[in-house]
Amino acid sequence: GTGVPTVGLGAFGSPAYGPEAALLVLAPLGAAGLSAFAAVQGVVVVVLLLLWLTFRRAIVAFPGNGGAYTIARDTLGDAGGLLAVVVLVLDYVLNVAVGISAGVAALVSAVPTLAPHRLALCLVVLAGLTLINLRGVLDAGRVFALPVYVFLASFAIVLVAGLVVVLSGNAEPLPSPAPSDPPGETSFWLAVLLAYAVACTGMTGVEAVSNSVDTFRDPAVRTARRALAAVVVVLAVFLAALAVLVPAFGVVAMPQTDAQYRSVLSGLAAAIAGQGALYYVCIGALLGVLVLSAHTSFVGLPGFFRLVAADGWLPRPFAVLGRRLVLTVGVLFLSGCAGALLGLFEGVTDRLVPLFAVAALSVFLLVQLGMTVHGLRVRRRVTSARAAARRATLLNIGVDVVGGLATGLALAVTMVAWFVQGVWILLVVAPALMGLLVAVRRYYATVDRELRDPGPLDLSDLSPPIVLVATEDRSRLTDKALAFALSVSPDVWAVHLAALEGPGSEEKERALREAWESDVEAPARAAGHRPPRLVTVGAPFRHVYAPLLDLVDRLSAQHPGRTIAVLTPEFVKQRWWQYPLHTLRARRMRSGLLAYGGARVVVMSVPWYLDDPDPERAARTTATLPSIAPVD
Amino acid sequence: GTGVPTVGLGAFGSPAYGPEAALLVLAPLGAAGLSAFAAVQGVVVVVLLLLWLTFRRAIVAFPGNGGAYTIARDTLGDAGGLLAVVVLVLDYVLNVAVGISAGVAALVSAVPTLAPHRLALCLVVLAGLTLINLRGVLDAGRVFALPVYVFLASFAIVLVAGLVVVLSGNAEPLPSPAPSDPPGETSFWLAVLLAYAVACTGMTGVEAVSNSVDTFRDPAVRTARRALAAVVVVLAVFLAALAVLVPAFGVVAMPQTDAQYRSVLSGLAAAIAGQGALYYVCIGALLGVLVLSAHTSFVGLPGFFRLVAADGWLPRPFAVLGRRLVLTVGVLFLSGCAGALLGLFEGVTDRLVPLFAVAALSVFLLVQLGMTVHGLRVRRRVTSARAAARRATLLNIGVDVVGGLATGLALAVTMVAWFVQGVWILLVVAPALMGLLVAVRRYYATVDRELRDPGPLDLSDLSPPIVLVATEDRSRLTDKALAFALSVSPDVWAVHLAALEGPGSEEKERALREAWESDVEAPARAAGHRPPRLVTVGAPFRHVYAPLLDLVDRLSAQHPGRTIAVLTPEFVKQRWWQYPLHTLRARRMRSGLLAYGGARVVVMSVPWYLDDPDPERAARTTATLPSIAPVD
Ligand SMILES: [K+]
Ligand SMILES: [K+]
Ligand SMILES: [K+]
Ligand SMILES: [K+]
Ligand SMILES: [K+]
Ligand SMILES: [K+]
Repeated sequence: GTGVPTVGLGAFGSPAYGPEAALLVLAPLGAAGLSAFAAVQGVVVVVLLLLWLTFRRAIVAFPGNGGAYTIARDTLGDAGGLLAVVVLVLDYVLNVAVGISAGVAALVSAVPTLAPHRLALCLVVLAGLTLINLRGVLDAGRVFALPVYVFLASFAIVLVAGLVVVLSGNAEPLPSPAPSDPPGETSFWLAVLLAYAVACTGMTGVEAVSNSVDTFRDPAVRTARRALAAVVVVLAVFLAALAVLVPAFGVVAMPQTDAQYRSVLSGLAAAIAGQGALYYVCIGALLGVLVLSAHTSFVGLPGFFRLVAADGWLPRPFAVLGRRLVLTVGVLFLSGCAGALLGLFEGVTDRLVPLFAVAALSVFLLVQLGMTVHGLRVRRRVTSARAAARRATLLNIGVDVVGGLATGLALAVTMVAWFVQGVWILLVVAPALMGLLVAVRRYYATVDRELRDPGPLDLSDLSPPIVLVATEDRSRLTDKALAFALSVSPDVWAVHLAALEGPGSEEKERALREAWESDVEAPARAAGHRPPRLVTVGAPFRHVYAPLLDLVDRLSAQHPGRTIAVLTPEFVKQRWWQYPLHTLRARRMRSGLLAYGGARVVVMSVPWYLDDPDPERAARTTATLPSIAPVD
Repeated sequence: GTGVPTVGLGAFGSPAYGPEAALLVLAPLGAAGLSAFAAVQGVVVVVLLLLWLTFRRAIVAFPGNGGAYTIARDTLGDAGGLLAVVVLVLDYVLNVAVGISAGVAALVSAVPTLAPHRLALCLVVLAGLTLINLRGVLDAGRVFALPVYVFLASFAIVLVAGLVVVLSGNAEPLPSPAPSDPPGETSFWLAVLLAYAVACTGMTGVEAVSNSVDTFRDPAVRTARRALAAVVVVLAVFLAALAVLVPAFGVVAMPQTDAQYRSVLSGLAAAIAGQGALYYVCIGALLGVLVLSAHTSFVGLPGFFRLVAADGWLPRPFAVLGRRLVLTVGVLFLSGCAGALLGLFEGVTDRLVPLFAVAALSVFLLVQLGMTVHGLRVRRRVTSARAAARRATLLNIGVDVVGGLATGLALAVTMVAWFVQGVWILLVVAPALMGLLVAVRRYYATVDRELRDPGPLDLSDLSPPIVLVATEDRSRLTDKALAFALSVSPDVWAVHLAALEGPGSEEKERALREAWESDVEAPARAAGHRPPRLVTVGAPFRHVYAPLLDLVDRLSAQHPGRTIAVLTPEFVKQRWWQYPLHTLRARRMRSGLLAYGGARVVVMSVPWYLDDPDPERAARTTATLPSIAPVD
């Protein structure tokens, strides 16, 4: 099963950008901002713990792989599911962009000479992830585990060391910057509110467990809950430690475009551990975890598309397991969108974080809303006699509602405050995506309406079809076709398409006619069958099936209600070099008749093999021997 | 009909390189070489007149479009026809290479600064011709006529003016070069022999008329003979005039790689007309005629391939009129081969001319041999009583034999003398080409043996097929398919491929089974039919048709001798955007069953249209309304 390292990948990188975004918003407040930062981080930890309680129950209530999508669909209806699809897609895309840009920020902090190449580095990493994922899903849990353990161990050492220094009163804070402007009361609280909103991206990724409950080792729900607990506890401790240590060591956030840019985690690690080996191990592991966290989107998207396609919101080929096409489309879609965002925001994490906050907070809010609805449903089912159970239900609903208010507040603040700086993009993309999903679903509904609910099989008209056999000349192949036609219907016409062959076509036709009576009609009569008629149809230059279509139309008019079956004898090409040696006429005829023949036409193909069919075929099918289970 | 300018294009350019090649061979002889040149040209004119007499009769005897190929095939048998195909292909290719390189030589003579770019210019012209001909055959007779008339008029003025000067005794020969070595008797006659051999390329192109008799205005044979006469007379006069004028004005040939290179025609024109406007008109028209003469190969090749394909030596798609594919293959083939030759011989005409001589002389020789055989056949049919007719036949045979000896001598000399310098290439390519043609023909013979001569239709077993209906779920489409199946056979199995759909597949199967008895079996029984059995086949991951193939094999084993028809219901995609919305399963199933199902399988497709079939289709077919002509 998927272990904590893999499932935690999406979450463990979050402290690299959530707290930093908040600190940057608070920077104008100077020293007051540092205390506010500690408070904001505290609130985020509380909201994270509320989310934990919600997700714990969600895993039990929706033990499939759906996550927010399944929850929203099953509790909030189609509209909720649709909204969930859109925000989850945005969440997947932004997780890639933010993970990569934060990873590059960590790298640049340690190797400042790379600073001018920030965007190029981001795009190189993205290209690498794209290529790896186009070649196939890389989901090697053990390979992933190593950087995660190194990351957790190295930061544990640094953070514990920092806490020891702080508790022993030996912290030497860096010179705290003076506030750029003495902030007024209003702008102080506004800054805190904005800081809280972006700080929420520090807890993104905890939803990953609920997206893949199925993949955990049995008993899946129990294992998943344990993994969730581990991820949440690690993340909460990490965020809480930052709440204490960042103000204590006076680490400041600076815009990523500064030439001397150093990320907050990098600054903190350097302040505590010095710029030695431990520092570089921390930064290297952080880079690895962030890039792998971007990679989790590539791993998750195809499965997500499959779920959505099974519900009819996406094209059905996406619902077929293991389709190469789906993987390719998904990877290129993710990569293209993330690349566009990285380019648009020049690979600067802090500019991307508000968009990520909107997407991730929407996911959280949908889960919390869904679980509230679910709680109300459960409560309705619980008999009033069981008071303790009713109280527990009420408490759960309370947790979901309070948590939802907290994430909803952060969501609303982010959308308003960063609307002009980029959130408007999401508000353009989301409805377009939604429109596309609705159009796809509506199309399938039309097809369904047309095809479903046939009622009992209607066998009122079982008259045999009129069979037209395409007869270029008489050969053992056309004879096989004629015999087959006579075995399924008494009404057989041999249709000779003249002039298709080019030179020699007239003599061919004459020869065909001369022998028809003796070699075809007479044997048919002798066998007690109505003899097949020979009909010549002028087939002008390049028109392979148009004359046949016309004949079909005329016969349809003469024999209303009867099916017209067109039978094409087909020489099967069993070797690559046979293709240039034969025309594709039979195949083109078949396609043309199917595409334009109308509902009354049925197309039949009688094959001819020069050699026995490919012997390798047998090996291939034996390997996948099907079980036949007749009904009776 | 095709006029003299178009059909003469191939021939009118020949005096640009044939005489020059001879003169270059004779250069070491000094002044003696100039007299020898006049004699050699005289012999070539005589051989040309003999060829004329042969071709005049060939046009009457073989009035189709075949030319050398048809003549050789019908008189010398398959081996002769095969040889004719190969030498005609080589002739087409070398006509392109020589025409372009001679055209560039004329251009470089007039604009010496272009001399270093000879090969590049050749390749640019070739690329231009290739692109024009890839876009479609350009056969605008009137556009072609203009440069031909300008060419004929301007050179007529120059040549007549030159003859006037010579006859008035005012010719001032350029200083005649001393022989590099005083030649011995043997080497003198050897040089003359070699000069004669390459001089024969001066009459190439006269065969063009015989290649396209069909395209002349009615009465085609008479018009073609007139056009042939005009082409031969113009060419003979041109070659004869050069025999007189080149020695009189002491024009010398020089290697094309010389920095001061000037072609013989260019030198002669300058010596007679001075380097004024007339000179530039002559050279411009000559360039145009030579490039257009290369173009005639591109025009002629597709039709030639069609003829050869109709006889089974080339893949049959080549025999279908107006196939875009054929044009493309032919153009790229010509262009690739000519480009390779130009590159290999650095665009130097004199190095290419011996190869051209081998190809063109082989064509001539085959025509002369063929017409000799034809003459002998005619003679056998002429009764001995008609003495005059017998004498005429004998005279004709004499012309063909003498002409054949002359071209055969030139051919043998060229092959020996220039073997190492390039003729060996033809002797490698020709057998390879021949082998390919023989392999293609042998393949068709195998197919024919397998398929032809079926004798009277064998209807000993007309038992209806076992019909397998691919049943994903019950819908109006599968009902239509089931009803059709029951109308052609009492033995119908509905085959449900499980697990193809991904999630939800099990419930689908259960629903299908539950309603089967009431909704399908009961109505079938009520209609007096054996009810269709429902069979579930496990279809693992990605295997669309393998399980069906396996079922077919098992049924074949249980019911030897019966045909198994597999019926796939198919949703017809009528709009481009429907393709990503549906799987291609029905199509892949059909292809897989046809490719691997074996001789006992028949594949049927029942279509379903969401909308009515494309209304434009009706318009398309009405435009090509076929005539139906039933036999009875
Ligand atoms: K994250
Ligand atoms: K996610
Ligand atoms: K995330
Ligand atoms: K020529
Ligand atoms: K030719
Ligand atoms: K020629």
